[in-house]
Amino acid sequence: MGQDGRMAKEKRGRTDRGGLLEQLRVPSGPVDLSKYDTRATPGFTGTKDDGKRALEALGTEVSDWQERLFAEGRTGGQRSVLLVLQGMDTSGKGGVIRHGAGLMDPQGLKITSFKAPTPAEKRRGFLWRIRQALPAPGMIGIFDRSHYEDVLIARVRSLVAPPVWNRRYGQINDFEAELAANGVTVLKCFLHISPEEQKLRLQARLDDPTKHWKYKPGDVDERELWPAYTESYEAALERCNSPESPWLVIPSDRKWYRNWAVTTVLLETLKSLDPKWPAADFDVPTEKDRLAAT
Amino acid sequence: MGQDGRMAKEKRGRTDRGGLLEQLRVPSGPVDLSKYDTRATPGFTGTKDDGKRALEALGTEVSDWQERLFAEGRTGGQRSVLLVLQGMDTSGKGGVIRHGAGLMDPQGLKITSFKAPTPAEKRRGFLWRIRQALPAPGMIGIFDRSHYEDVLIARVRSLVAPPVWNRRYGQINDFEAELAANGVTVLKCFLHISPEEQKLRLQARLDDPTKHWKYKPGDVDERELWPAYTESYEAALERCNSPESPWLVIPSDRKWYRNWAVTTVLLETLKSLDPKWPAADFDVPTEKDRLAAT
Repeated sequence: MGQDGRMAKEKRGRTDRGGLLEQLRVPSGPVDLSKYDTRATPGFTGTKDDGKRALEALGTEVSDWQERLFAEGRTGGQRSVLLVLQGMDTSGKGGVIRHGAGLMDPQGLKITSFKAPTPAEKRRGFLWRIRQALPAPGMIGIFDRSHYEDVLIARVRSLVAPPVWNRRYGQINDFEAELAANGVTVLKCFLHISPEEQKLRLQARLDDPTKHWKYKPGDVDERELWPAYTESYEAALERCNSPESPWLVIPSDRKWYRNWAVTTVLLETLKSLDPKWPAADFDVPTEKDRLAAT
Repeated sequence: MGQDGRMAKEKRGRTDRGGLLEQLRVPSGPVDLSKYDTRATPGFTGTKDDGKRALEALGTEVSDWQERLFAEGRTGGQRSVLLVLQGMDTSGKGGVIRHGAGLMDPQGLKITSFKAPTPAEKRRGFLWRIRQALPAPGMIGIFDRSHYEDVLIARVRSLVAPPVWNRRYGQINDFEAELAANGVTVLKCFLHISPEEQKLRLQARLDDPTKHWKYKPGDVDERELWPAYTESYEAALERCNSPESPWLVIPSDRKWYRNWAVTTVLLETLKSLDPKWPAADFDVPTEKDRLAAT
């Protein structure tokens, strides 16, 4: 590529060399999701194709940092990363995992998809199954839904009494503070779509027989509760937003932007941890000699 | 690409349109691993670059079949696939997962890396932790080492008495027959390298500070036991080789061939299961109307 091509290319793609994480982070205080444009592409200028290429281009770098963290975990390090994905149906939690996390080595990923809790899980308290699923040292955990469902659907559908869900915000804050103290860096991404975009995506599922299995009639009923879910998300984003465990709003009407943005903030998080390649705990020249003698 | 380019391309790559799985499968009867060339590339003609391209080209197809199996599992299906990877140190079990399994959606993978069993695991019998790690319906499980370690290192290092490891072959056969009956298709791949190739790979780990964490001085000591491990592998490949749970020998001195071959036999296995996209369990026109009304 000539000098001109390179310069033209630099005009597209990442527009801000500062942190995307800082840019997408929800400021403390009350949250009004209607102020966040679901079709915006903060930090990125370019077309859908540019965005897809930019995502692919992250593969080598994010895998490299993932392996450093993994290596640290194999040699006594205690740190891990936990990416929490939340969003309305069809917002693309699975798509982020497939296209973003899919760039990384699956050996270093621990993915957990949370469904409605079983009676046995409920009896143990809402955080029990979450603790069971935490990433081991060196791993990147990904939660497709999470403990936040216990202040989202639980609140909207009155699955528990108001004092119960109301108490959970504090329990979540205590839990996440404990995680931070234990070396688990938590990154919470709200995949923000519009109800119009959701309608298109549900239509697409109905139009394509290979996607019928992803559709449930209840998805339409849930749409009636959009305002109540929005209110519950706003409460969660306001009440459980700490500097150590920030919430990010990811505009998600454009799938390519969503995938690029989540992968980019995950990469930034890994880089900020700056895991080093572990030093040898043996004498390298000695081992070279021993090996040569075999 | 023009017609000529296409034709030239077809001369490279996959040479046998029949099944690679059948080609690599170990025939019943005594096994002599010295008869298997570790640098061979059965079923493939071409260069390393051709092989890498051929692997990349499998990505879409293998992901598609993976998703069909996953969809089946989400709609009542009970089938799953279990890929067992065994081989000497540096044979590339991790590399196959990174480069082959890495082509698929990580949501549909369950990867388990088995280390030495803990005392609590030992008390429960050698198959207990294996059962814990089995893939759920719709999932592709991958074992990086497995219950075969209990007739490999356990035999070579005399970790248990001979009657104990000797009894395990039958226990493994019973276990794998039970898996087959329960819808778990087991595919066992022995990644076959030469001792010379292992030496080069260990040297490479010693030469590269970013790989020191992968090296253990014990790796050199294990090399002394190469003949004993070979004998134990031959016994396992002979005594636990059934039509339902076959052993395959994957020549693995060439990493690109190893990755392509394992991914190809996994793809063949998925295709032979032929999972169908689940039919809608709702009335599609009704749902379209309901959605349109929202």
